[in-house]
Parts: sequence; structure tokens; C-alpha cells
Amino acid sequence: MSYYALTPDTLRDYLAQDEALASRLGGTADTWHIREVSDGNLNLVFIVTGHLGAVCCKQALPHVRVAPTWPMPLERALFEARYMQRIAQAKTPHAVELYAFDNAMYLLVMEALLPHQVLRSQLIANKDIACFSAPIARYISHTAHASSWHTQRFETGSQILEEFSGNTALTRITVDLILSDPFRQSERNPTPEAELLPVIHAMQDDADLLRAVTHLQTRFLSARQALLHGDLHTGSIMLHDGDIRVIDGEFALMGPIGFDCGLYIANLILHACAAPSKADFIRNEIQIFWDTFTEEMQRLFDRPQGDAAQLLPEHEDKAFVSAFLQEIFQDTVGFCGLEIIRRTIGFAQIADYDLCETPEARLAARQAALSIGKALVLQHQHIASIAEILAIFSTD
Amino acid sequence: MSYYALTPDTLRDYLAQDEALASRLGGTADTWHIREVSDGNLNLVFIVTGHLGAVCCKQALPHVRVAPTWPMPLERALFEARYMQRIAQAKTPHAVELYAFDNAMYLLVMEALLPHQVLRSQLIANKDIACFSAPIARYISHTAHASSWHTQRFETGSQILEEFSGNTALTRITVDLILSDPFRQSERNPTPEAELLPVIHAMQDDADLLRAVTHLQTRFLSARQALLHGDLHTGSIMLHDGDIRVIDGEFALMGPIGFDCGLYIANLILHACAAPSKADFIRNEIQIFWDTFTEEMQRLFDRPQGDAAQLLPEHEDKAFVSAFLQEIFQDTVGFCGLEIIRRTIGFAQIADYDLCETPEARLAARQAALSIGKALVLQHQHIASIAEILAIFSTD
Repeated sequence: MSYYALTPDTLRDYLAQDEALASRLGGTADTWHIREVSDGNLNLVFIVTGHLGAVCCKQALPHVRVAPTWPMPLERALFEARYMQRIAQAKTPHAVELYAFDNAMYLLVMEALLPHQVLRSQLIANKDIACFSAPIARYISHTAHASSWHTQRFETGSQILEEFSGNTALTRITVDLILSDPFRQSERNPTPEAELLPVIHAMQDDADLLRAVTHLQTRFLSARQALLHGDLHTGSIMLHDGDIRVIDGEFALMGPIGFDCGLYIANLILHACAAPSKADFIRNEIQIFWDTFTEEMQRLFDRPQGDAAQLLPEHEDKAFVSAFLQEIFQDTVGFCGLEIIRRTIGFAQIADYDLCETPEARLAARQAALSIGKALVLQHQHIASIAEILAIFSTD
Repeated sequence: MSYYALTPDTLRDYLAQDEALASRLGGTADTWHIREVSDGNLNLVFIVTGHLGAVCCKQALPHVRVAPTWPMPLERALFEARYMQRIAQAKTPHAVELYAFDNAMYLLVMEALLPHQVLRSQLIANKDIACFSAPIARYISHTAHASSWHTQRFETGSQILEEFSGNTALTRITVDLILSDPFRQSERNPTPEAELLPVIHAMQDDADLLRAVTHLQTRFLSARQALLHGDLHTGSIMLHDGDIRVIDGEFALMGPIGFDCGLYIANLILHACAAPSKADFIRNEIQIFWDTFTEEMQRLFDRPQGDAAQLLPEHEDKAFVSAFLQEIFQDTVGFCGLEIIRRTIGFAQIADYDLCETPEARLAARQAALSIGKALVLQHQHIASIAEILAIFSTD
């Protein structure tokens, strides 16, 4: 079968022809309810509900969904499927189950998260949610454990490197939009508020900042520590009551573990910049995130048996994990700063800023975010604890 | 055609059926002179000479040539062919030209280096050679330039990662024999001289040393800076007059650039341990190596245009290259120490030690080597200059 972009009608026919998927939905095809819910930047997404169950169908488009003249290779669906298959091995309860992948249609059929809502939307709607950051910390540490050179035979990491090195179309987005564009002239950068121009130009001329960004670019491309989600912002997380799930792994690659941590924390900080009254709540989530991450990493990396740590004598393990965590922490701080800057002045900005009720409030939010982001990037190799991040964050 | 291990007779038939290779040799097949010259640990090697030219034929065996019960996947020939194809793009005069690769026969047919001899053999024979280290330094810097995130679009490095991540059979040898076995009980470790046992046991119980080895294991597996040769000792280099060539790239992988530098320097130091009267000569070669490497890297990485450095303002470049060289240098020191130790007490020892005329001299040579190797591993993150290496080396 050759590729065609699905509609609700053609998707109904498609699913009816797949016995396993049809029986998962139950009843006859004409009874299924199909609803398009695409709201990311890149793909078509449908929720299909039958008498017995539901599935989520995600299909890649040959272009950016929200920018049809920007071509985007369909193969990204393959990398998302590979990511879901790899993550299944990590046995985390916060993953989404993949039911089927059609490599000709670039279509993933997966568990539907029906009552769940996107974390970013719930934060913006000021829903009564809390402690969602501990599961995210566990998710990152479990996936790191399943792919790290410290805990696995090196052949495992080599195979993951081989599986994901071809994911260059989406990695190019990360390299350009997060790691480069905010710090140079680029037609992808939207026109900023006039008041921000001096700040932006000063950043683009700041040799210390550019040196720190260069260090983070180098870390992202050369520090291949573990399998990353690669786009772990609050829009890639869905939750309902205590059930927290990570979705949208199409940016997956081997990289520095702190990249996933940094993007997540950055999007919490950005939310607090847009909604300053929630700063204490957000600070608490960040503290929970890092405390849980530290505990889980210490538990999972105790007595490492991988090729890069199996020689360590027993009493050395804790010192080893501490040093490893410190390295991850520095990357976390740096990538957190880059994500804050990129979501504030770069191509893919965030809905959180719409919480600001006046142009003045929005400008102040962006100025605060840029100030925090710049400080984190500049100091990422020197900040020693999460308390220092929270302190930088609270001075604004 | 299915695989069979070649003999001079079957190789003659094989080459006769390949028009391009036959015409390169000239004349009829019965006039070709075929000579087996296998002397590495792993492969069959033949030199074929005709009226017009000569070729070198290297075929993988399904086991270690010198240990037939140790199986070894044939696919390593594919990775050596890929390495030669990649290195051809770096346009270094110190590579060997690949004429043909037969993936079914796991056979490489390449430029024959007829008057050339292996550097290790020439050192052992005390031939009048010098300044061979500058070309090796240029070779490493050129291949690093052609594959680095700093100088190339990241898609280049990603493709190299994809091409070489599957080279796990030979990387497993590196991980076990260089990075692990000397520091643990292993049946692959040969029985050492009794006098060395206390030193070896002390190393295997030295928590500081094991922590330093763990750091180097981590660097080797996660610091994917550039395409490495992966086995760049003095037995992988051939020379004749001023023509210096690097052979045997089957261990190739993306890794820390200092791994290639460290293995090379280690084998020079090992030669000086076995032949102490040549210490000044060797020290001079090491100095030439590092000076040339530094100069070439500064020249080639000036104004880097790759995705991991394109933001740097002009006056920042030199500081950037200096910091990059310092990172490479620390890896160089550490891997140099590991290689010295491994070639002294591990599985694949070196012929240089046969220069020692008495058991006492050999023991003293190994003790000196272990002492230097241990110091370099322990201090690899703190030694700041090549002069410090030469100082450690001269105290013995």
C-alpha cells in the first residue's frame, strides 16, 4: 500500500481491514466514532472509539502540519515507533502502548488516553494538579537506565545509536530551533516585541553566552549517554488523576540525559514567568522533580553492571552516581536555559504566554524568562544545586 | 558467491575473473606472483604482483587467525571498507586506497605497500627512521576534521554514527582487552612474571585507579567526537622513506579523538621502555607528534562551520580550539596509560619487549611501563601538557 494522508472516512476503512485493531475497537466499523484531534505542529492525530475500546492513530504528514510549505520527511514516524518499542523495554508505567506501526502509511496506532489532558493545557487552565513531576523524573531515570553504557552491555547502546542516528530531520529542528536560531539572525525567528530587541541583540553579541551555547551544542551532539525523548516539554505529557503519560517521542535520539530534564524544567519555569502567582507551586514541582530524579538514579545506578562501570568497587558506587548526576545536572541547567530562551524568542513559542492579560505583563514575562534563561546558560557549568536554580528563578 | 577462505590458488582465480583488478595487475593470471603475508591477529593477507602493478588482498576469517577457537564475525571487513571510504573523503596522503570490496567474500582489495614496512618492526630492527610522528598527527587531525560536529553539518556525523555503530564485534575487543581485562581477573590475561603479580593485584584493588578507568570507559563509549581508526598502534602504520601510511581500520568507530592519539603515543613509550637507550629519540617523536597535532588542529578548526560551533565570534575561535585540544589531551593521556598497561599485562602483548636481552631487563621494562601507565591513567584529568608526560616518562 502506498502512502496517503488519512481522513476520518479512509481511516475507518483502514482500521476495518485490520482484524486485530478492529476487534480491539469492537462492533462494526460504521459504529466507530472517529474524531480528529491534531494539535501538535507536525502530524495528523485521530481518536477512534468503538464499543469495546479506543485507539489513537497518529500519522506523519510530508510537511509541517501548521506550515505546509515546510517539508518534513515521513520517516519520523518510524523513529517514534522505534522509541515506543525501546521504551516498552524500560517497563515504565508512564509510557504509551504501541499497538501497531504501518511503515508504508507512516501510521502509529496506540493506546488512546481518553480522559487525559495535556499538562501544558491543564497548567494554563489552572487545574488542580500537583506532584506530576515525580513520575516524569522516574520516566527519565528508567529510560536512561535501560539504555546507559553504565548499566547495559555496550552492544545495547550501540544498537540504539544505530537505530536513531538516522533521525536527522527532527534532530535538525532541535539543532536549529533550540541550539542556534535564538542566537543568530534567522528568518525563522518571529518578530519580537520592540522592547526585546536590545536584549536579543545583546545576547547575539555576547561572546561568553555564545561560548556557553557552543559548549551545549557540543554536548548535545557528542555526549551520547542514553536514549532521550528529545522533546519533553509540558505539551508532550498527558495526565488524568494520578496517571501521567509521556507522548510524542519522534525526536528521540541518544544524547545527554540532562537534555530531557532541562526541557521539562524549562517549561515549568516558563509557565511561572507567564503566571507569576504560581511561582511557589512551580518551584515545588521543580524541587520534587530533581529530588525524585536523584533518588531514582541513585537506586537504579547503584552497582552498575554496564561496560562503562563494572570495575567499580562496592563502596565507590555512590561517589560514582553522584559524579554522574553532577554531570547530568550541568547539562540540565544549560539546556533548561536554552529552552527558556527559544520558547520566548524563537520559532515555536508557547501558549502559556497568553495567560498574560496585558501587553505589559507579557513583555515583563518574556523579559524575566530571557533573564533567567541567559543566566542558566551562562552559568550552567558552575551552578551546583537545584536550590541555585530556584534562587535565580525567585529573584525575578 | 558464498564465502570461502582464500588460498593463493583460489585468489588467483578470483582476481582473474575481475576485469578491473586483473588489468591493474597486467598479463595473464599465471604470471602473477601471490604471497601470503598475514601477520596480524585476525585476517588473511596476500600480496599479488603482476607485470603492471600489485594489489593487497585482505580477507576476514570467521575466527581470530591466531586463535581459531575464538570466533570473530566476518562483518568486520565491511567496517574496514567503510572506514577506508570515509577516510578517502578526508584526502589525507597517509591513507591506503581501496580498489574493491566484496561483501560476500569479506575481502578488501587495496593498494599494495610494497617497499613499506611496519613501523613497529622498523623500530624493533632499529632502522634509521625519524619524524614519522608528524604525518600520523596530520592523519588524525584530518580525519577528525572530516567527521567532527565542529566542522561538518551534524548530518555527516550522524551518518558516520549509523555506519559504524554496528561494529560491535571489534569494539567488544577494545572494551574488554584495553578498557577492562587488565583491571580484573580474566582468563584472557596471560600469566605474568611472578614479580609483577603484586603490582597487578594492587592495581586491581586501587579504587582511585578503577575510578579513573571508569571515567575513560565512559569517555570511550559516550564521547562520540569524530571517526576514529580505533587501533592506531605502531603495528598499524607502514612506512618507506618519507611515505607513511595507516592501515587496518577495522576497529573504526565514532569516539574520543584522544583515543587514537593515546594509543599511538603509548606504543612509542612502550618501545622506549623495552629499549631504554632510545628514550630521547622516542621523547622527540612524541613532542613532534603533539606539536604537529596541535598546529594542524588549530589550522583546521579555525573558523569552525559545523553545527556545534558556527555561532562563535571570530576572536573566540582560538580559545575554542585550545579548550577542545585540552579535552582531547586529557583523553590522550588516559587512553595512553590504558594502552601501556594492556600491552604489558593483557592479552595482545607486543614484540618490542623481545628487545630485552635478559629476563631481568624484560621485567624492569614491564615494571617501568606499568608505573608510567598507572600514573597516566590516574592523573589523566590533571596533566596539562605533553611536557608533563615526557617528565613522567623520563623519571623511569
